[in-house]
Amino acid sequence: MYEVEVKVPADLEAVRARLDDRGATSRGAVVQKDTYYDAPHRSFADTDEALRIRSERPKTGDDKTRITYKGPLIDDESKTREEIETDVGDGEKLDAILRNLGFEPAATVRKERDRYALEGYAITLDSVDDVGEYVEVETEVESENELESAREGAYAILEGVGLDPDDQVRTSYLGLLLGP
Amino acid sequence: MYEVEVKVPADLEAVRARLDDRGATSRGAVVQKDTYYDAPHRSFADTDEALRIRSERPKTGDDKTRITYKGPLIDDESKTREEIETDVGDGEKLDAILRNLGFEPAATVRKERDRYALEGYAITLDSVDDVGEYVEVETEVESENELESAREGAYAILEGVGLDPDDQVRTSYLGLLLGP
Repeated sequence: MYEVEVKVPADLEAVRARLDDRGATSRGAVVQKDTYYDAPHRSFADTDEALRIRSERPKTGDDKTRITYKGPLIDDESKTREEIETDVGDGEKLDAILRNLGFEPAATVRKERDRYALEGYAITLDSVDDVGEYVEVETEVESENELESAREGAYAILEGVGLDPDDQVRTSYLGLLLGP
Repeated sequence: MYEVEVKVPADLEAVRARLDDRGATSRGAVVQKDTYYDAPHRSFADTDEALRIRSERPKTGDDKTRITYKGPLIDDESKTREEIETDVGDGEKLDAILRNLGFEPAATVRKERDRYALEGYAITLDSVDDVGEYVEVETEVESENELESAREGAYAILEGVGLDPDDQVRTSYLGLLLGP
C-alpha cells in the first residue's frame, strides 16, 4: 500500500465553497490535539521516527485517543513509512506512563480538521494553531506504478478547488510549528 | 490509598468449595496473558519498575487489553507502588509500537484467574502456567494505621478457607516464573 499526499497552504473558506459546488461529501469536523514525544535513548529527529498521542474531539460524540508510532521513511520517492496506531482508553494515563518511562512531551500540535471525500480522494481542511491553514489531498494505491497517476489526480483536485499544486509543502505541521 | 495483599500457594478446588460454603460472591473467571517488557535504556530489575501489556479474556464477552506501568516501591513496609493503567484497543499493535521503540518482551505470564468477594476482601484464585496455584486476598485502606487490622482480616479470610498465612509468598508471578 502506497500513500499519496499533497499539502498546500489555502484560504479554507474559499476551498470549502468550491468543495460544496463540486458535490464533495462531508466527513465531519474534529479538533485534534497531537502531543509528540522525545525518547530518552535516541533522537527521533536523527532516526526520523515519531511517537504521538492524538486526542480527537468530534462535534458530537465522545473524545477518542490514539497512540501512533511512525517509522523512518522506507522509500524516499513515495514518502512511505511504517505507521502503527491503536486506540487508548485514557490519554492522560498513557502520557503519565510515557513520562515515567523517560519519554518527554516535545511539542503539541492543535488543529481544527474538516474532512471531505471527492473522486476517491480524502480532502482535509486543517486550521493549525500557530501554523496556518492548509489543505491536504490524499489517497492510497496498491502498487508503485500507480503513484504517478494518483499524484496527477491529487493535483487535479487541488486545481479544481482553486489551489496551485506548485505551492506544495512537504514539511509536517510539527516541523512547521518548530521551524527550521 | 494503601493496598494489602497476601498470597499463598493453595489447592484451588478445596478453596473454591470453602468459599462456596462461606457464601462468597463469584466475580467471574478470566484468562490473563501478561507480557512484561525490558526497556532499552535502563534495567527495570535495577529500577524496580515494570511495563506490562495484559490481555484478558472473559468466559463471555470481548477480550480486553491494558497497558500497565508499575513504579518502584514508594514505601517498603506497605508494599505501595505507583501503578498507572489504561485500556488499549489492539494489544498486538501496541506490542509492535513498543518493539519499534526498543522495548523487548522479556517474559509472559499466563493464568486462569477466578475472582470472589467476601467481607470486603477480593479473593483471587490463580492457576499460573509453569508456576502453580495460588490464592490472593486483597483489600485497600485509606490510611497507614488501618494496615495492620486489614492484614489481620486477610489472614482470617485465609484461615477461614483452610490456608495458612505463614505460607505467604512475596515474590510476584513473574519472579516465580523466572526463578532466583
